[in-house]
Amino acid sequence: MSARMDKIDLPVSQIRRYLEPGPIVLVSSALGKTCNIMTMGWYTVMEFVPSLVGCVISGGNHSFALIRKSRECVINLPTTALTDIVVGIGNTSGAEVDKFGRFRLTAQPAQLVKAPLIAECHANLECKLADDSMVDRYNFFIFEVMKAHVAKSPKHPETLHYIGDGKFMVSGKVISRRSKFRSEML
Amino acid sequence: MSARMDKIDLPVSQIRRYLEPGPIVLVSSALGKTCNIMTMGWYTVMEFVPSLVGCVISGGNHSFALIRKSRECVINLPTTALTDIVVGIGNTSGAEVDKFGRFRLTAQPAQLVKAPLIAECHANLECKLADDSMVDRYNFFIFEVMKAHVAKSPKHPETLHYIGDGKFMVSGKVISRRSKFRSEML
Repeated sequence: MSARMDKIDLPVSQIRRYLEPGPIVLVSSALGKTCNIMTMGWYTVMEFVPSLVGCVISGGNHSFALIRKSRECVINLPTTALTDIVVGIGNTSGAEVDKFGRFRLTAQPAQLVKAPLIAECHANLECKLADDSMVDRYNFFIFEVMKAHVAKSPKHPETLHYIGDGKFMVSGKVISRRSKFRSEML
Repeated sequence: MSARMDKIDLPVSQIRRYLEPGPIVLVSSALGKTCNIMTMGWYTVMEFVPSLVGCVISGGNHSFALIRKSRECVINLPTTALTDIVVGIGNTSGAEVDKFGRFRLTAQPAQLVKAPLIAECHANLECKLADDSMVDRYNFFIFEVMKAHVAKSPKHPETLHYIGDGKFMVSGKVISRRSKFRSEML
């Protein structure tokens, strides 16, 4: 797993390609000199333009305050190559552990936010908090994706989809039914 | 594909097992004598207890008014055995087509809502609208799952995860890292 993955920009209106299938993601955040990473499985695409993603971030996470105060984060997409690191990140707290150091991940500077990109991830979405009106009631943050970096290959990496109880489903195989779609539905 | 799938009740606090991996789902609804089915890929689990699911339902869908007025729906989980039916449902409008009839699906009575269960689906979640305060702004409905019916087998069916452009990723293989989880994280 090279940290120097060759990445290109993706129009932010197209990030559904990575998030809509529902993979577990890694959310990186920063406040002052503190950075952290958390796993996240409870989120949804909400709009193409602006590019909105709604995310549940429990108040019990060390990242909660970092994200709420900085109003920024990066959503990073790990592949199955990072399975044990994903599990490690989900089972440690940033209150006790420097996760970039512990898991030997590379923090790369983002372009539009202070939170770092995780270089080893297949895609990195720089996000700014667009609406926090549902945070007090549901821990639900609505972010706008401002910039998207994605690896040139593979086009469809194997991803991890958490089902609870320490288990993941694995996705990777892609099937097309494009010819059966009405053009306006694509 | 038998419509008479043997199903059992699942505690509603455990529905993450089916929804958190992010499969495309079929949402059935009813208002008076009108029923409909739509595909949905933009949703997230929001809470275990009460069992909450947040869903984006575009105002362009025929189902939007049915769900908003009836304040109920059923979220049904199709497997890959229903791939072409899922595509057909996503590419027709309930304004023109009776989807149960057209796609030869069996509408079964639910227990707590008037919207029908789709018998051919692996799981059926009876939902009541819990919060519509984000509907005007984001088409975002928060439902409470009141009752969950799931097929006895297979334990982990192959599911479809939409990535746009007429393509789906397929999930089915399950890997466990249970031994690496802290017990309170399971």
